[in-house]
Amino acid sequence: MRPISLRQWMTSVADRGRALLDLPPLLAAQGDSLEVMCRDLMGRRGEATSAALAREIASLWWRTPETTRVHFFRTLAGEFNPDPEAVAEAAGAYARAPGPSTQIALFRAVEPPRQELLRRINYAPGGTAALVSMRAALLELLPDHPELAAVDADFKHLLNSWFNRGFLELRAINWDTPASILEKLIRYEAVHAINGWEDLRRRLADDRRCFAFFHPAMPDEPLVFVEVALTTAISRDIAGILTAPIDAEADTRATTAVFYSISNCQAGLRGVSFGSFLIKQVVDELSQDVPTLRQFVTLSPIPGFTAWLREVETEEPWLVQLKANFPDAPTPETVEPLKRPLTKACARYLLSSRSPGVPLDPVARFHLGNGARLQQLNWLGDVSPKGLRQSAGMMVNYLYDLDYIERNHERLFDQGEIASARAVRALADQKI
Amino acid sequence: MRPISLRQWMTSVADRGRALLDLPPLLAAQGDSLEVMCRDLMGRRGEATSAALAREIASLWWRTPETTRVHFFRTLAGEFNPDPEAVAEAAGAYARAPGPSTQIALFRAVEPPRQELLRRINYAPGGTAALVSMRAALLELLPDHPELAAVDADFKHLLNSWFNRGFLELRAINWDTPASILEKLIRYEAVHAINGWEDLRRRLADDRRCFAFFHPAMPDEPLVFVEVALTTAISRDIAGILTAPIDAEADTRATTAVFYSISNCQAGLRGVSFGSFLIKQVVDELSQDVPTLRQFVTLSPIPGFTAWLREVETEEPWLVQLKANFPDAPTPETVEPLKRPLTKACARYLLSSRSPGVPLDPVARFHLGNGARLQQLNWLGDVSPKGLRQSAGMMVNYLYDLDYIERNHERLFDQGEIASARAVRALADQKI
Amino acid sequence: MRPISLRQWMTSVADRGRALLDLPPLLAAQGDSLEVMCRDLMGRRGEATSAALAREIASLWWRTPETTRVHFFRTLAGEFNPDPEAVAEAAGAYARAPGPSTQIALFRAVEPPRQELLRRINYAPGGTAALVSMRAALLELLPDHPELAAVDADFKHLLNSWFNRGFLELRAINWDTPASILEKLIRYEAVHAINGWEDLRRRLADDRRCFAFFHPAMPDEPLVFVEVALTTAISRDIAGILTAPIDAEADTRATTAVFYSISNCQAGLRGVSFGSFLIKQVVDELSQDVPTLRQFVTLSPIPGFTAWLREVETEEPWLVQLKANFPDAPTPETVEPLKRPLTKACARYLLSSRSPGVPLDPVARFHLGNGARLQQLNWLGDVSPKGLRQSAGMMVNYLYDLDYIERNHERLFDQGEIASARAVRALADQKI
Amino acid sequence: MRPISLRQWMTSVADRGRALLDLPPLLAAQGDSLEVMCRDLMGRRGEATSAALAREIASLWWRTPETTRVHFFRTLAGEFNPDPEAVAEAAGAYARAPGPSTQIALFRAVEPPRQELLRRINYAPGGTAALVSMRAALLELLPDHPELAAVDADFKHLLNSWFNRGFLELRAINWDTPASILEKLIRYEAVHAINGWEDLRRRLADDRRCFAFFHPAMPDEPLVFVEVALTTAISRDIAGILTAPIDAEADTRATTAVFYSISNCQAGLRGVSFGSFLIKQVVDELSQDVPTLRQFVTLSPIPGFTAWLREVETEEPWLVQLKANFPDAPTPETVEPLKRPLTKACARYLLSSRSPGVPLDPVARFHLGNGARLQQLNWLGDVSPKGLRQSAGMMVNYLYDLDYIERNHERLFDQGEIASARAVRALADQKI
Repeated sequence: MRPISLRQWMTSVADRGRALLDLPPLLAAQGDSLEVMCRDLMGRRGEATSAALAREIASLWWRTPETTRVHFFRTLAGEFNPDPEAVAEAAGAYARAPGPSTQIALFRAVEPPRQELLRRINYAPGGTAALVSMRAALLELLPDHPELAAVDADFKHLLNSWFNRGFLELRAINWDTPASILEKLIRYEAVHAINGWEDLRRRLADDRRCFAFFHPAMPDEPLVFVEVALTTAISRDIAGILTAPIDAEADTRATTAVFYSISNCQAGLRGVSFGSFLIKQVVDELSQDVPTLRQFVTLSPIPGFTAWLREVETEEPWLVQLKANFPDAPTPETVEPLKRPLTKACARYLLSSRSPGVPLDPVARFHLGNGARLQQLNWLGDVSPKGLRQSAGMMVNYLYDLDYIERNHERLFDQGEIASARAVRALADQKI
Repeated sequence: MRPISLRQWMTSVADRGRALLDLPPLLAAQGDSLEVMCRDLMGRRGEATSAALAREIASLWWRTPETTRVHFFRTLAGEFNPDPEAVAEAAGAYARAPGPSTQIALFRAVEPPRQELLRRINYAPGGTAALVSMRAALLELLPDHPELAAVDADFKHLLNSWFNRGFLELRAINWDTPASILEKLIRYEAVHAINGWEDLRRRLADDRRCFAFFHPAMPDEPLVFVEVALTTAISRDIAGILTAPIDAEADTRATTAVFYSISNCQAGLRGVSFGSFLIKQVVDELSQDVPTLRQFVTLSPIPGFTAWLREVETEEPWLVQLKANFPDAPTPETVEPLKRPLTKACARYLLSSRSPGVPLDPVARFHLGNGARLQQLNWLGDVSPKGLRQSAGMMVNYLYDLDYIERNHERLFDQGEIASARAVRALADQKI
Repeated sequence: MRPISLRQWMTSVADRGRALLDLPPLLAAQGDSLEVMCRDLMGRRGEATSAALAREIASLWWRTPETTRVHFFRTLAGEFNPDPEAVAEAAGAYARAPGPSTQIALFRAVEPPRQELLRRINYAPGGTAALVSMRAALLELLPDHPELAAVDADFKHLLNSWFNRGFLELRAINWDTPASILEKLIRYEAVHAINGWEDLRRRLADDRRCFAFFHPAMPDEPLVFVEVALTTAISRDIAGILTAPIDAEADTRATTAVFYSISNCQAGLRGVSFGSFLIKQVVDELSQDVPTLRQFVTLSPIPGFTAWLREVETEEPWLVQLKANFPDAPTPETVEPLKRPLTKACARYLLSSRSPGVPLDPVARFHLGNGARLQQLNWLGDVSPKGLRQSAGMMVNYLYDLDYIERNHERLFDQGEIASARAVRALADQKI
Repeated sequence: MRPISLRQWMTSVADRGRALLDLPPLLAAQGDSLEVMCRDLMGRRGEATSAALAREIASLWWRTPETTRVHFFRTLAGEFNPDPEAVAEAAGAYARAPGPSTQIALFRAVEPPRQELLRRINYAPGGTAALVSMRAALLELLPDHPELAAVDADFKHLLNSWFNRGFLELRAINWDTPASILEKLIRYEAVHAINGWEDLRRRLADDRRCFAFFHPAMPDEPLVFVEVALTTAISRDIAGILTAPIDAEADTRATTAVFYSISNCQAGLRGVSFGSFLIKQVVDELSQDVPTLRQFVTLSPIPGFTAWLREVETEEPWLVQLKANFPDAPTPETVEPLKRPLTKACARYLLSSRSPGVPLDPVARFHLGNGARLQQLNWLGDVSPKGLRQSAGMMVNYLYDLDYIERNHERLFDQGEIASARAVRALADQKI
């Protein structure tokens, strides 16, 4: 017998429970049916009916139209919220006599009942995937619906617990990987789009590597993946990586691993971050797999640069002038004359931060926060429309040196010091 | 590449972090070193040092002498407790203006910092197993240390979340199972001790089945297992099961599956119950595996019977007399003359309950709570010393009929009605 | 440790042996290097050097230009042939005194030394694949080189032994199959070409099934595969199968499994047949997987029909006339007026055979030989250029009824009786 | 779907064929039923009936009493032998006109029909295991039945082909191995008996290793296994290995791997040797697994020594005297006074050979033939009754140095030179 997850089995339990519930075979997602079932699920005690209800909710969710989702989340925010009076009472009891029992009672009063609801939905086959999808929908609504913030806090709290990093599993992705997973890479690639199966095959050739994290509860869904090129020098432009001829002997002579794309696959897991672990574990894997490797770098975009440039408040003449001259729709031709001030401005941007540990640029924030080092600025490294629009065509390499990342990380957070190569600092200081 | 868990990888991260920590290679578990490291772990931000600390804590735990454990838990109860003033303040803010932000703030103030500490320990290789062991130790201390109740509540809260039933995996245990797992069955069997490998082999023969639940984070540790005999009639005594000659054709002719032993393996998971799911899933597995099966019963002890008998307050003459006559150290010979009043008393005991859903006998509580039916009382079903001492030598069969368990369960909890066979009720009512 | 095949290990042995052999790192396949190494391999006794030589031969084979292959096979035919004198002597000794020892000696004298050579090549990593490729090349040469027939007999003898049906493994192919295997389906499909990944995906959708045989020594190479459509009626035309919208509920309502394509993947395994086993095993698999299935049929081409029609010697007026009128390049329009005589002629063709057990049409020979029944003739079932050219656009269904295939098979071989539906026989007998 | 071997499937085919055969459900193995079925199998053409017959034969074999086996093998030797007249005719045709067709015809005439019979039995589920068992029985009969030699030659020929080293799989055996395989180690251990599960567990502890070869057609049956101790010096006595306390840090500090037991498990595979490959592959595995290892030696018995000593023809006075004085039932006490001449005689024995490549002692023949070096003689290395009886209590270490085994092997076979340490040669030359 192969191992059978309890979840798979619950499908048959749920089938049995379904008969008891007297549900129609395919519930139309109308009106408040989700809410009705959630209420019922919290009241039930029998396992079969609970399992059937949880499965119905998980299944109905996917057919719930966007327009009625907000109503569902509002019910979670209202009806499944803690009772303020009970909270006040428990807080009072605790204040009068702090001790284990009053404290436990207060914790229970404060914990929103919707946490228990979400836990029960999670028992269902496909429950975790449905909850991750719910969170994704919730995150889209949140800007316009601040009243749902506490609901999101509960989703995040539970997903953080279930997606505890100790449960994740790293898998190498290659041409021997099931097609059903490979097609998800095509879909989820967020940095440099994959143009069909031939392009994907190139990215999985002998001189490339790809790794992803998976969770046991969603074994067919990558959570995050990274694409790596094995080369003999630090890559300076993305086109060079995407179109290079295959180096069939990279295995035995590559000196450099270039991480050129990292994509989070599950919008609903925002804030449940694994990317940092992924990169470092992959560095370790590659070190063993390809012993000739000597350095591990990224080839990264600078997504916030032009936006910063257009809005920076400055009195420095060269920067004032650059702001004025920077074209609305940059092209390689129109930026070329601005190369010197643009690279200086970009180095400045990358080296600046809002507060210790928080570089301005979001990608820089991620890699520098991981303990990487700002290594090299690449002029016209990405001349795609997006690259020109966001980064004036520039790219940057961050260097991962496992012997230093801990130190770099701590200096960034303790002293606000950004680890960087002398050359990048020199760019920031060059005379214009 | 086989999948590699992030945990395994963290071993190497932790090794790297260890150097930074400047820890001696094998820390002696002296004084308050656990506490010191826990404090440090909560303060750290770098991943390698955090990983190293978490691993040290998990590893040091196993070498911590019993005498210093209570000190560790007291630190968790004190130093890692919520700050009462902060709680009071957050409760006040929430009372004044209930809303998402004050509610989230209150939830954070109330959640004990030790929950975050335990989550961080859980990242370490072997972290989950260490936490389960900590809880086991804590449960032993709890009766004498009520001040640790809130600590236990946090352990239970987190273990319940991580051991969510949706993540469990059922595995058949047989003679093809790794010896390293089989020896754990020998160790963990709690109901009818396994006397070495030959006895184990008998219990895994062609006319027997064994199933266990496992969790991905402890893949070599069964959580709970059940032993089943495939027979052609409801077994009435345990010796008959343990010593019967092998029926090599049970596969094709057994009509009855007898669940004769269910053992929880992890003391630290008390209150995180899976036994109910195990039995029901196994009933389903067996139905498919052995199509001739018609009924699923347990052969169970009645562990609370004689204790109840000795203390029952009664004025009924026959019961008063039975109490008086019941021997201190019962033997088959000394109970035989009492057969009639003893079976009547036992049926009474099994059919009585404290409150709806809560039968008096713990084993009855488990099976009846699962929706099973009290089917048959077996005189001298277990004449082992333990069987005579606890149950006056009697055993009982509970019947699992999947078409009725939901209904039985609900009637028990809603109306306090115990599902039972007419014969058992007749025993309870028989004239003496 | 995962199991490691001795073959993988021999890679490192061979590396060690290579140093001893003093071989250049990449031998150019020039002149008679293959032959030299084969001679050497037969002489060597040490394992490392033998392993190195075997690997070199297997590897060098792939780089041997077509023009020099014939030379290699001639060497096998000549130098590695049995010694006629030794054979004569052993035959004489056996004739004089037949007995175990003279018989064994004769068997050894008659067995060509190249069998031992091929066995030694087979030890190498990739040895089996190289031998299968050698046989494919040999089969291409055979028509022009009858002197190589004995070499082919030895290849076939050994491949038959190694690809013993008892060692084969059936695998379901679906969208979860590694891309590296799926792309081989695209390459090997011999009946109805697969046009890229989207077409492949359609053929692996929920209402389709695909199965292949594999051998442990070539785990990534399908030997033969079959494509199946799950439908609610016997399909009459191939376009209907290839372009039908997906029936997502086929799993629970399909009554008919249509085998619409069977492709042998390895030219070098000609005469080592598994197709018959594949179909029957797949019928069994599908019966269990989709319990609603009631009938199993093929949708097959009739590749020899038009060739037969053009050459048939006949005096029957309608057939003489059909021959005369049949267009050189048939189209649906030009065959339509001939429908009646064409279907009659085709039924005749399918029902005729050269000798018991040997129907004329090669596809009919295969299915009828397997014990299938000629079930239905489909007018314009395949209007592709190839379909029109070979079969005048007709297709045929063969029915696999496991309860009858044994009987059908034996009647075909014993009495030359072709199992067929009354309707097909009626077509053959219709009046024109 | 997991891969399903064609063999497993054939079980159901065979079931279907069984009905056609009208066989009783459990055939008693009486009279000549095996022979009858073999005749039938050679005549059958339908697959289901063939499969059913093959399975019946494989199954019936196990129930065939020893007394009737010889009759079965005689039928194979007679009825399934080549036809001498046909052989003579084919030999004549070949002699007159040697060419591919006459040669192929001769090969077919000479190949005994029983080879085809054995191939057909091999299709059955369990066929390979039955054939291996038949060969084991045949080997026992052979000394008294020389007329069966040609039958044995066919068995060996086919088994050699199927058990081609390229198909074998090395597996590490440890405490995580299924109990069903571990119990076979207990049963098959041929050198130093394993006394139950506790003894086995010691032999699989952290400072021990065990490896076995398996074949895909008999996945649960080890073919040969080797037991290894990881130590810090060359072991001189077997008791030291079997009873040593566990060295939990052997992984990180062992310098020496001692191969102290190699057992062939399948008597029926005699002459189909894998032991040599096993040792060398294990040396490679261990080198990677335990990087501190510097030397690989055996601790081996000298099974032929005392027999040789008692029968040696000599005129050397010291040896004449030793022969005379050597006790019938040696004990440590009685051999101690003879230490000097005994070690000299033993060194002589080990260094002598019958012909190049063929040392006298069977164990020496195996290891020296593999290219190992005779390294060290150990006085009283095995004081078990068997050790004293066969080897006068001595043991010997053979050294496997992968850089030299090829050279040693070739020198042994080309020049008859036995690779040995100077100290052993000195022993052989010492003055008495």
